[in-house]
Order: sequence, then structure tokens, then C-alpha cells
Amino acid sequence: MPHGSVGIIYKRQHEPARLEAEKLETWFRKKNIEVFSEEMEAGKASLIPDSVNWVVVLGGDGTLLGASRKVGRYGAPILGVNLGSLGFLTGIPLDDLYPVIEMMINDRLEVETRVMLETRVIREEEEVLRFQVLNDVVINKRTLARIIDLDVTINDEFLTTFRADGLIISTPTGSTAYNLAAGGPILYPTMETFVLTPICPFTLTNRPIIIPNTAAIEVRMGNESEETVILTFDGQVGFDLFFGDRVIISKSKEKIKLLRPLDHSYFKILRTKLMWGGVTYNKDGDH
Amino acid sequence: MPHGSVGIIYKRQHEPARLEAEKLETWFRKKNIEVFSEEMEAGKASLIPDSVNWVVVLGGDGTLLGASRKVGRYGAPILGVNLGSLGFLTGIPLDDLYPVIEMMINDRLEVETRVMLETRVIREEEEVLRFQVLNDVVINKRTLARIIDLDVTINDEFLTTFRADGLIISTPTGSTAYNLAAGGPILYPTMETFVLTPICPFTLTNRPIIIPNTAAIEVRMGNESEETVILTFDGQVGFDLFFGDRVIISKSKEKIKLLRPLDHSYFKILRTKLMWGGVTYNKDGDH
Amino acid sequence: MPHGSVGIIYKRQHEPARLEAEKLETWFRKKNIEVFSEEMEAGKASLIPDSVNWVVVLGGDGTLLGASRKVGRYGAPILGVNLGSLGFLTGIPLDDLYPVIEMMINDRLEVETRVMLETRVIREEEEVLRFQVLNDVVINKRTLARIIDLDVTINDEFLTTFRADGLIISTPTGSTAYNLAAGGPILYPTMETFVLTPICPFTLTNRPIIIPNTAAIEVRMGNESEETVILTFDGQVGFDLFFGDRVIISKSKEKIKLLRPLDHSYFKILRTKLMWGGVTYNKDGDH
Amino acid sequence: MPHGSVGIIYKRQHEPARLEAEKLETWFRKKNIEVFSEEMEAGKASLIPDSVNWVVVLGGDGTLLGASRKVGRYGAPILGVNLGSLGFLTGIPLDDLYPVIEMMINDRLEVETRVMLETRVIREEEEVLRFQVLNDVVINKRTLARIIDLDVTINDEFLTTFRADGLIISTPTGSTAYNLAAGGPILYPTMETFVLTPICPFTLTNRPIIIPNTAAIEVRMGNESEETVILTFDGQVGFDLFFGDRVIISKSKEKIKLLRPLDHSYFKILRTKLMWGGVTYNKDGDH
Repeated sequence: MPHGSVGIIYKRQHEPARLEAEKLETWFRKKNIEVFSEEMEAGKASLIPDSVNWVVVLGGDGTLLGASRKVGRYGAPILGVNLGSLGFLTGIPLDDLYPVIEMMINDRLEVETRVMLETRVIREEEEVLRFQVLNDVVINKRTLARIIDLDVTINDEFLTTFRADGLIISTPTGSTAYNLAAGGPILYPTMETFVLTPICPFTLTNRPIIIPNTAAIEVRMGNESEETVILTFDGQVGFDLFFGDRVIISKSKEKIKLLRPLDHSYFKILRTKLMWGGVTYNKDGDH
Repeated sequence: MPHGSVGIIYKRQHEPARLEAEKLETWFRKKNIEVFSEEMEAGKASLIPDSVNWVVVLGGDGTLLGASRKVGRYGAPILGVNLGSLGFLTGIPLDDLYPVIEMMINDRLEVETRVMLETRVIREEEEVLRFQVLNDVVINKRTLARIIDLDVTINDEFLTTFRADGLIISTPTGSTAYNLAAGGPILYPTMETFVLTPICPFTLTNRPIIIPNTAAIEVRMGNESEETVILTFDGQVGFDLFFGDRVIISKSKEKIKLLRPLDHSYFKILRTKLMWGGVTYNKDGDH
Repeated sequence: MPHGSVGIIYKRQHEPARLEAEKLETWFRKKNIEVFSEEMEAGKASLIPDSVNWVVVLGGDGTLLGASRKVGRYGAPILGVNLGSLGFLTGIPLDDLYPVIEMMINDRLEVETRVMLETRVIREEEEVLRFQVLNDVVINKRTLARIIDLDVTINDEFLTTFRADGLIISTPTGSTAYNLAAGGPILYPTMETFVLTPICPFTLTNRPIIIPNTAAIEVRMGNESEETVILTFDGQVGFDLFFGDRVIISKSKEKIKLLRPLDHSYFKILRTKLMWGGVTYNKDGDH
Repeated sequence: MPHGSVGIIYKRQHEPARLEAEKLETWFRKKNIEVFSEEMEAGKASLIPDSVNWVVVLGGDGTLLGASRKVGRYGAPILGVNLGSLGFLTGIPLDDLYPVIEMMINDRLEVETRVMLETRVIREEEEVLRFQVLNDVVINKRTLARIIDLDVTINDEFLTTFRADGLIISTPTGSTAYNLAAGGPILYPTMETFVLTPICPFTLTNRPIIIPNTAAIEVRMGNESEETVILTFDGQVGFDLFFGDRVIISKSKEKIKLLRPLDHSYFKILRTKLMWGGVTYNKDGDH
């Protein structure tokens, strides 16, 4: 009888990732651990059973985001191993793979819980889409659209009409992704609040807003919107919205469990990824 | 025997506020409610007893901030009445004063709880200052200082060294004040998280960070700081910091209770104060 | 013999604009001035002869932008009359129409010159597009594109690779339009410099750059761009770019002449349109 | 008879700079070039005669800024040699010192001209200060001041009242210094325009404004300012302003000449100093 089971998801169309997955598969089998290994593929359901004890992701943050949408609801903790430079979610370098895996199967890694967002689209009183994301939901104008108006309510109270290129609703996990490029703040990753950041707002006093996890955010296209808009999940999956659609975004019941080495430091990743170490210039200064 | 007691704090050196306070005093006395009325004065302890049932503030947000530092710990709910244009904290217009006061003494107003920040300054192992604020704590360089470095740890974990004009640590209540001018986000006011916003950071990738209410933020002057820096509370009270001082900022045990009419809308105040109604210009647009 | 001739261009599919145009036509004819009146239509060449003495635009800034692309090269000065709220380019309110027109035909208006941008697209050594704009040229990713890289050189010297949602190259006239929403600065309108503003740049230290009017800006899609990108002129006309295309943007030889009343104030329009009058909130403040 | 003469200005209280200056002095003397060497000292007039052919600065950008205020009016071209990491103005690394100096005395370096700002302070009809800077003029509130209002006119036309922590007026050279930290844009360094950037403006729609070199900017303290404000030149020299003072800032008649190697690239310095090379994170991305 095997000592537990593990899922492996590796980066799509990436030869080194596939080879590492094979080696890792062999390693697990030697330890008498059952393995279910598959390439990340967006449109396809995962064949990994929901009974696995762990999931190992070999790739970058993008692969882990995809994997979390597939197997996040299983409840099995996920280990993100990066084949290139470290990611926010994939903080284990390839060099540390086997020592960390040893720790994983011996229960010596920390589990960090991350909140997800659930999006529902209601069209003519019917739910036409339900989707979970770990990073962000983006509502965007089409490239050639003149402008869009987005009416936003929070817990049924009118917030405002955003006249902008679009709107990002991000988890703390997603706050260091697209949200940051659009001028949003960083949210400490284990928090359970969300940030709503307009993209290039035409009303110059609009600002990112942090809202509590009890909020249900509803977005509708405003009266002056002439065209369809696009809903994008984690920057990976798109969906066309029509006039009259109601998009309702709230905290998901499911959470993602990420595995972390005990010496893991979020702030260190932040300093590295955002290059905070470097004093870029100075005011008057002799450096 | 009086039917309860009330404190009144009115704006400093402001004749209309003083006159309104007198009228209101008479009104309360007629209702057989005991009144303790005083002018707001920063350096002086309040003579209002901590047994009052309510506190009415006549002035602007600044007067309410000062009052909250004086009587916030009493636990009595505070009603903010604005004599000019409405404030974020003083949302009752003078015209509505008596109807709202009627509601207040009949217990028909909503109570909204707001979190405060506690700041402690440790100098050579001794606590030399302890201070509570409703809005923000600001650590600033002196006007002619070249530059300051601020080393920040959160729960004893090193975050980064900010090279900047200063640093704002703000409550959700304070997020619409100085934090907004420095580029920080808006926090929904009843949340219990904080925002840490660098002022004119020289490392251009620095961004505001939202941190949970369990965080103890410690700030020290970095090694390259040549000069004393200044600690400011709610933009009203200043304190000189020396090299080696540890500034520790965390959630206060005390909270402020604000009285609100039932139809009160934070988002409406936001739209009004930040002029979100106005579409300022358009991209290509014929308006 | 008529006393000169005038072109009228009125807002597309806008009944009040059409009616005002008819009235104005009659008025001009009574003054023995020849009139050529037409609806603004993007895809169609103008029938207004290049010999007209003046062009009157009835509509908003969008109509004037379109008109400037059609008849800007004529050299005839353009008068922008706004039927709604005033625009940056259409600063004459409808109420002042006839007094201002009187001044126009009596040569008592000021002429303000505005610089335009010329864009050329080179595909496999051949020029496939040449286009003039008064506001801006935008290079954008498609809505569902993951990300784009844009390699930029200025006068054949490599500037950087922008990893962003897109890039705006704006004239001073266009600086108060999309450029402002993307975080760019305001350029005094009669200057002859340009601003290059990245849209949601992923490299957080990227900033808008002001470049002299002698600069030839060349933009190419970077090696990692997977998809076509879109070129947009004044937010009104789109063009598909392919990998390998060179987009060369420089000062146009043509300039637009705008007619202005003598008491015209750009700063007043700025204060009004951007609502600078309103103090939105204050730091500690009792207002 | 000596073959020309050179001034050397080296960084204040910096032993390695002093030693390099001595070595360089000897080197020049061997070449029969007259040398005038002195330590940078802010409050003291330079003893270097205005007849020198070149000035060599050994230090960082701060030393060069100080030197430019002392000897900039001489018209002699300045060579900036950096003893630490390269600066925007001091682009010659110490390792290249002697080869570049050889090129300098053989006239094989390029001369780049940089515009300066002249500030005049008028108090009760009298000019009480006149000062030239290469980087920026900053008007700042005092650290504990509540807030300041600054009334700004440009060529006698009212621009707006800035309610802010302060205001930066920067040359293109200074645009990569404090202006950048305050959210301002980069100006190509040989341009002759200026940027006016508010520091933490309370009116959220305020934006940096680029103005032509023909502009005379006048700043006065607004009616609601309660306190004195401070004028700072290049972040190095301070001056107290009183209510009623008029500060007039315009293009200086003098320009600075900087010596550059032929392969000098401003964009390369920009990419290096602002770390544009580093892709800091990605949207969905597998890196």
C-alpha cells in the first residue's frame, strides 16, 4: 500500500519542466508514493484525483495560478517550485526541490492559507458563469472601445460609476500582479480583504479602495457603454459580458493552501522582486 | 435627577461654534440632561467626566480628531456636527442638529466603531511616550534635512529601509486624509487593517502596503540618517525623535464609537468629498 | 462676389448640432459668405474646399479632433464651439456663438498654433500608413493578450523595452486626454514637445518622459510579444500592427490653427475641467 | 608658460576624493597645466579664477551641483567624475579618469549644455535674494505646519492655488532627482523646458505641469497659510520665506556646460539608475 499520493502539474509546452516532472515521478514512486502527473492545460479538467495528499507545481506563478483553479478546491496543500527566477507563489528554487519535497512528505513545511475570489455572472436572472480565482478578476474595455462606464455597488450600496479602461478586483495574493502595474497597493498575502483598482480612470480623484471580505461587489455596464466588455480571470481565461449582465464578486468558500519552508519570508520576496534594495538615485546626494 | 449627561466639545477660537454650543447646552438642560461643555484645546486635559452618555462635537474633522484623543477612551459614542461643509467624520450638517440630537437621546442612531492606532516610543529601554490616534501617525524628515532612512520591521520581521521624505501609518479612518495626498489607497472605514504609505519614496518601486491589525510596526532611523526626525499625530501633535529611538505602532485597545443617522452612506461622502460625480474630461469624446 | 468662405463641420448623428449648423449656414449666407457644411464622418474625405477662410466646428473635442485630421492641413483657422460642457479644444459656449463668429469674420480673434504628430508605419521596407493626429498615438495590447513588449528608440538610440499594457505618445494638446488618465503630466498647449507615457507598466520605475520635438520615436514589438498589437489615433481610428512593423512618430510639418477669444485662458479651462477649485478634503482640518 | 589651466573641486570631508585630487593635481602639473584645487564648501566663495579652461569635479552629483552654483557662471566646461556608483551628472567612473582627462585636454570630449533656473525673492518691493540652480527650487511647508497654500501665476496669469506639502520647480537635469520621488515625469536633459510638480497635493486632480522656458513662474503664500515656508535650492541651501514675499523663477541667462565622452548615453544611465532592465514581476506569467 502506498504512503499517500501526490499530484504533479508542470508547465505547459516546456521541456525542462516535463523532464523534471518525470524525474520527480520516479523519486516519489521509489518512496512508494502514488503519483498523478500532468501538463498544465487551461481548457481541460484535471485527472488528478481529489484524494491526493499534496500537489507539486513545476513552473512559474502562471502555472500555479492555473493549477489552483483546477485542484485548489481539493484542499490538498500546493508546493510551488520555480524553474526560472523565483515567483511570489513559486518560492522554491529548483535546486532545493528534493530537500523541500522530503520536508513536505514528512510534514515539516508550513501551510499558508490564501483567500480566493468567486465570480458569478447573472444574465437575465440566470447564473451563466461561476469561477474561482487566486489572483484577480479584471473587467476591461475592448481595445478599440471608446470608453466604458462601470456601475459598482458594494453590498447593494452604490459606490460609484467608474469611467475607465477597466477595473481590477484583486485578492491579497494578486495585489503584487496586475494591480501593482495599475497603481494599486500591496496587501499582506494572508489577509482576507480585497482591493478594487480602476485602470486609467478618467475621474482623476478615483483611487484604489480596500474592502472587507464580507463585501459582495456587483459590477454592471453603465448606460453609456456602447460595447461589450471582457471579464478576465487571473489574466488567463476570458469571458464576454453583455449589457445587462450582473457580475457579482465575493470571497470564495474555498481557500488555497500553499506549502512554505519554515524560513520563508514574504518581505524578502517583496524586496527582491520589486528591487527595493537598490537606491535608485538621490536628491542632492553624493553616492 | 437628570436623564443622563452629555459632553460638548466645540471648535477652538470659533465664535459660531461657541454660540451653537451655548444654544445646545440650554436645549439639553431643558430636557433635564446634564451638560459639560468646553472648547477644544490640544494641550489641556478635558474636564468632561468619563461617565457621560454621549459626546457632541461642533466643528470639523480636526475638532473631532482632537476630541477623540481626549474623550475617545471614555467609551461614550461621539456625534460629529459640521459647521461648514461636511467632513468624513463630521457628517451631520448644522441644519439637522436638533432632529439628530433627538434621535441620539432616544437611542435611534447607529453606532459605528472605528479602530485607533497606539504609538509607543522606546528610548534607551524606557517608554517615553504613549499616544492614541484615530487618523494617522507620520514620521517625517525635517524641512531642510537631506534625506532620511527609516528601517521598518513588522512583527519583528524586516520589511525594508524606506528612503523617503517620511512614512505615514494610517487607520482606515485616516486613509482619506494625508494618506490620500501621498498616493495611498482608501480603506473602508470600519475595517481593522492599517496602511503604511511612504511619502515621496526615492526607491520608485516602493508602494503603500496594507497590513493586518495584528501587526506591530516598528520604525527606527536608519544608519545614514544624520538628523532628528519628527513624529506627528493626526497632523496636530508633534514629538522629536532621536537616533536609536524605537517607534512601535499597533492597534489600540480602545476604539472610537461614532454616531450615525440610519441613512448614513460612507460612499456618498466619498463621492461628494472626492468629487467623483464629475467626469473631468474624455478621451475622444463629445460631451 | 462673396466675402470669403467658411466650412462648417458638425457632430455626427446629433440633431441639435445639425440644426445649429443650418441656422449658422443661413446667417453666413446673409453676410454674403460662402458656406460648405457637412456632418463629421470618420471614414470619408471632406468636401470642404481647401480654400476656405475659416472652419467652424459644432460639437465637442471629439468632433474637433476628427475635423482637424480632415481639414487641418488646409491651414484655415478652426473655431471650436461646444454644444455641451466646454472642452479643452472647444472653448466657445453655444451662447456666445454669434458674437464670436462676428469677431472671427472681422479678424478679431487670436490664432493659437498647435503642433501635431505624424505617424508612419513601415512594413517590410514599405510605408503602409501615414497619419496625422492632434492628440495622441496609442500602441495597445489586445484585450486578452497576456502582455506586450515594446522596444523604443529615440533618434536611433535605444531607450528601453516597455513591458506594459501599451504606450501613449501625446502632443501637448493631447496631454489632458488619455495621457492624464494613464498618469502623465500636463504640457502647456502651445509647446512643441511630446510626452511618452507607458500604460500600466510592469517595470514600476518606468515614468512618463518628455522629449524634444526633434525626436523621431521608433516603436517595434519586442521579441516576446506573441500577438498583434493595435495602433490607435486620437482614440478614434485603429490600425493592426504585425510583428516586424516599425512605427515612426515625429513632429508633423502641419500645424493646427485654433481661434481663441482674446480673454481666453488655458489655465481657467484647466481649473474648471480638472476641478482644481475644489479643496477635496484636509489633513487635520476644520473646514 | 602653462598650456591652459584647470580647476578641481572635490567632495567635502571625503579622504579618497582629497587623495585623488592631489594625484590629479600632480598629473596636470606634469603636463604643464596650471591647477587650482579646492574642497567643495557650500558657504564659501570659490578661489578658482574664472579664467580656467576646465573644471574637474571629483565626487557625486551633489558635489557637482554645488560646484555648478560656484563656477557655473565661468563658462568653463565641467567634467564630473564619480568616486562611487555613477550619477546622472557624474557619469565618468574613477577607473576612466586619466584616459578621459587626456581627451578633455585634447578637446575630444563633447560639450552638453544644460539650462539653469534663476530664483529671485522680492520682499516689500526689494530683491532680497537671487540664486541659480541646476536641479530644482523647492518651496516647502515646515515639518509641523498644518498645510500651506501656494498661489502660482505663470507670466502673470493665475494658474491655481496649490494646497500641498510643497512645490518643486525643476530643470530637465533635476527631473530625475526629487521631482521623480514626488511623481513627476522625466525631461530629456538638454531640453529647455521646466516642470512644476506639487508635493502631496490635497487636490487630487493636481498634476505635474510642463511649462516653456519663456515662463516666469511667480509663487506667493496663499491667504490661509499660517506660517513661514522654506525655499530650498538643489536640496542644499535653504532660505526662509515670509508672508507677502514673491518668489519669481525663470530661466537663467547662464548655462552649464558638461563634458561627455562621445559614447555617452543618457538613456543607458536612465536604464541603469532606474533599474529598467529588471522585469519585476508578471501578470500571469511563467518566468
